[in-house]
Amino acid sequence: MAQSPVLSISRRIRSTPFTRRVEAAGVKGYTVYNHMLLPTVFDTLESDYHHLKSKVQVWDVACERQIEVRGRDALRLVQMLTPRDLRGMNPGACYYVPMVDETGGMLNDPVLLKLAEDRYWISIADSDLLYWIKGIAYGFRLEVDVVEPDVHPLAVQGPLAEDLMSRVFGEAVRDIKFFRFTPMPFEGTYLNVARSGYSKQGGFEIYVSDAALGEPLWDRLFAAGEDLDVRPGCPNQIERIEGGLLSYGNDMTRENTPHECGLGRFCDTTLAIGCVGRDALLRVASEGPIRQIRSVAIDGDPVPTCTDPWPILANGERVGRISSAVWSPDYQTNVALGMIRMTHWAPDTRVEVEAPDGMRTAVVQKGTFSQRAV
Amino acid sequence: MAQSPVLSISRRIRSTPFTRRVEAAGVKGYTVYNHMLLPTVFDTLESDYHHLKSKVQVWDVACERQIEVRGRDALRLVQMLTPRDLRGMNPGACYYVPMVDETGGMLNDPVLLKLAEDRYWISIADSDLLYWIKGIAYGFRLEVDVVEPDVHPLAVQGPLAEDLMSRVFGEAVRDIKFFRFTPMPFEGTYLNVARSGYSKQGGFEIYVSDAALGEPLWDRLFAAGEDLDVRPGCPNQIERIEGGLLSYGNDMTRENTPHECGLGRFCDTTLAIGCVGRDALLRVASEGPIRQIRSVAIDGDPVPTCTDPWPILANGERVGRISSAVWSPDYQTNVALGMIRMTHWAPDTRVEVEAPDGMRTAVVQKGTFSQRAV
Repeated sequence: MAQSPVLSISRRIRSTPFTRRVEAAGVKGYTVYNHMLLPTVFDTLESDYHHLKSKVQVWDVACERQIEVRGRDALRLVQMLTPRDLRGMNPGACYYVPMVDETGGMLNDPVLLKLAEDRYWISIADSDLLYWIKGIAYGFRLEVDVVEPDVHPLAVQGPLAEDLMSRVFGEAVRDIKFFRFTPMPFEGTYLNVARSGYSKQGGFEIYVSDAALGEPLWDRLFAAGEDLDVRPGCPNQIERIEGGLLSYGNDMTRENTPHECGLGRFCDTTLAIGCVGRDALLRVASEGPIRQIRSVAIDGDPVPTCTDPWPILANGERVGRISSAVWSPDYQTNVALGMIRMTHWAPDTRVEVEAPDGMRTAVVQKGTFSQRAV
Repeated sequence: MAQSPVLSISRRIRSTPFTRRVEAAGVKGYTVYNHMLLPTVFDTLESDYHHLKSKVQVWDVACERQIEVRGRDALRLVQMLTPRDLRGMNPGACYYVPMVDETGGMLNDPVLLKLAEDRYWISIADSDLLYWIKGIAYGFRLEVDVVEPDVHPLAVQGPLAEDLMSRVFGEAVRDIKFFRFTPMPFEGTYLNVARSGYSKQGGFEIYVSDAALGEPLWDRLFAAGEDLDVRPGCPNQIERIEGGLLSYGNDMTRENTPHECGLGRFCDTTLAIGCVGRDALLRVASEGPIRQIRSVAIDGDPVPTCTDPWPILANGERVGRISSAVWSPDYQTNVALGMIRMTHWAPDTRVEVEAPDGMRTAVVQKGTFSQRAV
């Protein structure tokens, strides 16, 4: 596999309200996510990483498409879609909600925003979850509209995120609690601002509900943050693996239950909440998963890109597979995520990983890399 | 927009059983299609094009994922999914089947293969149609399995396709009729071979039902076709626009009805076939669409890549938009596809197109470019 193939663009791979600014800023690579462009690197993966961990970045994450569910049966529908108990959810809350099919297989791991009792946004990972939700709504003849609104998230991430955001949206942003959102004024309208984002460095996601505001918002953030060394950024492969942030399609697929992904705490299948997949997950919850995602340190030189999963072996027997791996400058090892059988998932278990360039030794970690000191 | 951004790869952007051969053959660009790699160019777009129209090419179209529907309610489900009347469909037939939501909006435009009375494959365009089908099956509690089998199409396209195929699969391939498939022997097993493909040059699609056979099949085709100048290829942007082959996500989206896409002949909504979207499409069918896709010749130098739709204007008023456009060496003009209002869709209507590099004159065509002599 060539490391840097060229991406041919077309209307089918959609650009975002921020793409022109991203291009002007010298983006060096993209991936495709929900049929849209998602930047992957601006300077180098490592310099983007160091900057993210020390300063503040603005990320074009418009590819986190929103699905709006509204109407009389809105709560009934969203509760059908996830095993997480939504009964205590209030407007202004963000919930991380695994969504599964009838067998308990992961379909997506979105963030649910409750706008009102009868109105929700579902901020999705990389799969056309809209099709599933429309199919369920149609099949159960629910009184709901299920639409993809013109809403484009822009993330502000890094330790200086709060300082930058307060200069654009006012001091009130400091009061937004983790996984809560509130409408904040911008250019004569209001944008929902959440304290959330796909990094462990802290920050916000701004739900830009009018594409025309994309460039003015981008420009305001960069003008306000010049002395903070604000830079364009994107979800960083190194930082997210260190932090144990899972990527749908990479670390989990329809093959996996939430429990295998370490998301069992979001599954309240013992309660009578009536979600799709409840029966299958109840079985898993009572027995426990027989494999689960773990952080893994892989020895040796920096690993190549993990495109197909790498087998994890113990005494020549296959006990799991690595799905994401990259060299970490801070931890001076290859940090990785992989699904490992219960026989070998205990912390400090020594295993072998069959990387494309040869066998390597590796060690199962306790928790995530970012939970321990560098 | 940079013309050649780099694509960052990961497990989420899946490689195919043919990717190693495609890489070894020097692929120059990819797009992402159904979360998989789809090659876009090998030599140059134009030399690939001339070769496709005169010789034979082997295409990695494994991204045409298969959805298998099987079980007692299989026919009931597939008929719910499309407005096309499936009552006359026999095993061995391929049907092009627009699939729509309850409002008649296009969700995908797959090819349906009938394997048996209770078993179908749906060979999909670029959207997670599996999610829609699983949602409908679940909502209606149908007795079906809906799965994504390990089947990877490889296309053989071009005027010499039949000669090449007969050397690998025997003379019987010449008897396969257009949009029919039949199991053909290969390496001790049988692969379904259809006379179909995303070009107007004739050819076949081989449904490789075992990933391990991918490379042996690729190698056999190249060994057998050396004197035919067989080359690796891929759907060619120039040839497909000349031929009026629509691309889901480019030329049509959920916003469009089949009738707007010129697919009204595949909609039998006057019959009581009970498909999703029937009510909405019946309305459209009785009134006719007010806009429709047309081939358009755009004057001037070769156009840039069409990423966002380009407005079509007449007397300063917006009457449509171009969704795909490219320079055609054979027709010595820019060939394009666009959605145009009925007031301006008549052949030979002169319009203006607002391309990124300025206004251009353009002419609405009668039929497709490939229907007239070069």
